[in-house]
Amino acid sequence: MDERVTSKAMKGLLEKAKEEGVQTTWGRLESQGHQCKFGSQGICCRICAMGPCRILPSGDRAQSGVCGATAETIAARNFLRMIAAGVAAHSDHGRAVAEVFLSAAEGEVPGYGIKDEQKLMQVAMDLGVEIGKRNVEEIAKDVGRIALAQFGQQEGEIAFIKRAPLKRQELWRKMGVVPRGIDREVVEVMHRTSMGVDMDYENLMLQGSRCALADGWGGSMIATELQDIMFGTPVPTLGSANLGVLEEDEVNIIVHGHEPLLSEMIIVAAGDKGLLKLAQEKGAKGINVAGICCTANEMLMRHGIPIAGNMLQQELAILTGAVEAMVVDVQCIMQSLPSIAQCFHTEIITTSPKAKIPGATHIQFDEGNALESAKEIVRKGIEKFPQREKGKVDIPKEAIKMVAGFSHETINYLLGGLFRASYRPLNDNIINGRIRGLAGVVGCNNPKVSHDEMHLQECIHFYIRYQRYYRQYKY
Amino acid sequence: MDERVTSKAMKGLLEKAKEEGVQTTWGRLESQGHQCKFGSQGICCRICAMGPCRILPSGDRAQSGVCGATAETIAARNFLRMIAAGVAAHSDHGRAVAEVFLSAAEGEVPGYGIKDEQKLMQVAMDLGVEIGKRNVEEIAKDVGRIALAQFGQQEGEIAFIKRAPLKRQELWRKMGVVPRGIDREVVEVMHRTSMGVDMDYENLMLQGSRCALADGWGGSMIATELQDIMFGTPVPTLGSANLGVLEEDEVNIIVHGHEPLLSEMIIVAAGDKGLLKLAQEKGAKGINVAGICCTANEMLMRHGIPIAGNMLQQELAILTGAVEAMVVDVQCIMQSLPSIAQCFHTEIITTSPKAKIPGATHIQFDEGNALESAKEIVRKGIEKFPQREKGKVDIPKEAIKMVAGFSHETINYLLGGLFRASYRPLNDNIINGRIRGLAGVVGCNNPKVSHDEMHLQECIHFYIRYQRYYRQYKY
Repeated sequence: MDERVTSKAMKGLLEKAKEEGVQTTWGRLESQGHQCKFGSQGICCRICAMGPCRILPSGDRAQSGVCGATAETIAARNFLRMIAAGVAAHSDHGRAVAEVFLSAAEGEVPGYGIKDEQKLMQVAMDLGVEIGKRNVEEIAKDVGRIALAQFGQQEGEIAFIKRAPLKRQELWRKMGVVPRGIDREVVEVMHRTSMGVDMDYENLMLQGSRCALADGWGGSMIATELQDIMFGTPVPTLGSANLGVLEEDEVNIIVHGHEPLLSEMIIVAAGDKGLLKLAQEKGAKGINVAGICCTANEMLMRHGIPIAGNMLQQELAILTGAVEAMVVDVQCIMQSLPSIAQCFHTEIITTSPKAKIPGATHIQFDEGNALESAKEIVRKGIEKFPQREKGKVDIPKEAIKMVAGFSHETINYLLGGLFRASYRPLNDNIINGRIRGLAGVVGCNNPKVSHDEMHLQECIHFYIRYQRYYRQYKY
Repeated sequence: MDERVTSKAMKGLLEKAKEEGVQTTWGRLESQGHQCKFGSQGICCRICAMGPCRILPSGDRAQSGVCGATAETIAARNFLRMIAAGVAAHSDHGRAVAEVFLSAAEGEVPGYGIKDEQKLMQVAMDLGVEIGKRNVEEIAKDVGRIALAQFGQQEGEIAFIKRAPLKRQELWRKMGVVPRGIDREVVEVMHRTSMGVDMDYENLMLQGSRCALADGWGGSMIATELQDIMFGTPVPTLGSANLGVLEEDEVNIIVHGHEPLLSEMIIVAAGDKGLLKLAQEKGAKGINVAGICCTANEMLMRHGIPIAGNMLQQELAILTGAVEAMVVDVQCIMQSLPSIAQCFHTEIITTSPKAKIPGATHIQFDEGNALESAKEIVRKGIEKFPQREKGKVDIPKEAIKMVAGFSHETINYLLGGLFRASYRPLNDNIINGRIRGLAGVVGCNNPKVSHDEMHLQECIHFYIRYQRYYRQYKY
């Protein structure tokens, strides 16, 4: 376990977990023993009732499933269903944002509105919405309606495909992988990966690409664009990260999950004078909101709210003994949270009808009455403060300062200025060789490898690879 | 293997398979050895990259996955993804029918039209389409548009829910399981079953129900209703079944899969004079179309076309050595078909862009030019006839006569007559105890149990149970 965690903050808390007899992700991974080789290789098929089937590509045993599906077919189908699930998750997030956006434009959800009018106009133009002399609400309504229609659309092309470079668009059309609608592509993946449907892995992969594009240029893009319009496009902001951001003498409320619809309101609620007073009455100096997972990033880049940790730190946050409430919405929440919280005073609060956990308190987040929902949640946290056991509090010292919020609009502005925002200086310097390359380091962590190694190592790998390349060709 | 197959026709062909060294479903099941116990019990999770995880509910090893998911969560998620895939498959079938239906109403697809105007009016009324003095095409267009809109619909309720008994509708609304749209429910299942989303098996099962209802009262119902309108509502028809329906001296073309869009046209093409002449030139006395799987049922109940077999007989049909072409569309096709066909002269023809098989000939079925597509496919079969090796032909003698086509409209008519079609005599006799019960025997077969045992045994079980019930209470 020790080699898998390099952060001092985490090491200490994992020691504490051991002492308290609390099992965490790493312990559960160990208790799994050897993980199934068939499953790991993608050659286990549980799609129909004639199975489950396992393939041994080299060997004298089964070379195909009971239906005759080969290793290639099985692996492709499994991979496609992963794509479908990812697209479904991201796009359901985008759909929730689009629904609230449209309601906000219609003035039906107090607390939500249009913060970035410039971006609204940009997105409106991309979606072919008439601007002219129409007011912001009218334009926003059209943008919301078109965005929402992308999910159920059955024919044609999703709208944002037109944003891709023309050559790329042509290639996608030639390959037949331009999504017709977001939901439709997920459904077609589920159909084609069913028993006895698509058995040609190349044909399957094409549908996988179409489905993935429905996320990248559909659901996820809609989520990003509409969130920026509603909550503000991120600009460079000072923030901090790691478990040390929790406060010893304040009510610590952690917001964990994915959708800023919830976290934006929690931030507002945490600034409420009545609730601040209540916190003081309970003996706290204030209310400290921190984030975990993607929600953390949303709050950091728009408000400088500190990040308590990433996905594998969610259990450790509770182990600090200093978290009054962990509020979750959807995705990457561990089912172990309520049982770990039982050893402390922490309240685990689920808020989405799509994601409940046995043992957690469910306070449904009502977007139509968002601030009240958020206040109720924050109040729940404050009321837990007196139950915090001082002897059980171990907040690590580690926390680092950072600057976040580099949206592409910001980069465009930083490189080109206000009147001719552009990537030009970047492009020029890539062309003239002074910048040797760019790396996008994306994704989350996994207890199978050293914590955050994927991100740290990727950066180093890129650096080394480019150094070698540089030397080899003697630029 | 022998106990698993009771039909004489199948036994003989399985012997032949052994002699020829051809592996069939039963052989592949054997070569799987013991099937994975975790997978069979639904407690293997391959949803995220921290896994695959396996749970041992009783024992001292892992009680939960790496994310903390319990056996209940994992089993519920796996089950929900099965529902999603089934709904996706059935509904994609319904969508294809709705698309062709709308095109037919618009007069864009020669060969397809409205055969059952009475049913069109009934469905139109159920969908709230104005009838008045409008012509059939106008009404059909509205029906097609509303049907197609069910798939992408994002809010409200799918239309056919109103057909359910009122009490049932109320219960569904109370439980929050009335589908908002067909595709949306599949996507929400895929989202909620992703890592760290829904972890409450009861909450998961509710979404599973909502998704399943989107099939039963959405996709599948749309498929049934529109197919009946386009191709005719089934009435009792004499047919025959089992591998003995293949003809020794005719070109045998088997249509296998699910969508009558293809099979209806194959039937028309097989009656084409030019093709019949070509068949005779090639030495055959005629063209014999037979079905396998659900497509077989579609052709049987509307045209009395014989059923060559059900799902597990698809390979055996090729083993007769008397099949010139097996034409497939989607679902329940075995990937083994092309390799078995290599031992004979059979051409395996895939027709759907959604389902290709390596080693098969792909002739895309174009609904806009359906008859020409169908003719090309039939021609391909005819041209194979001279390559049939007489010494390799073994058509079993077994084939039984049967009456099929008992659509609910037919039962209504049979029980109530033309002017007051009704289930009344049936209901009356259930109420007065002369009919002790009804059993719906539905589904397909599985090589794990004796062939068709599930259907045969279910009937017997029902009979025995009701006999016991009867004696116990001495009616």
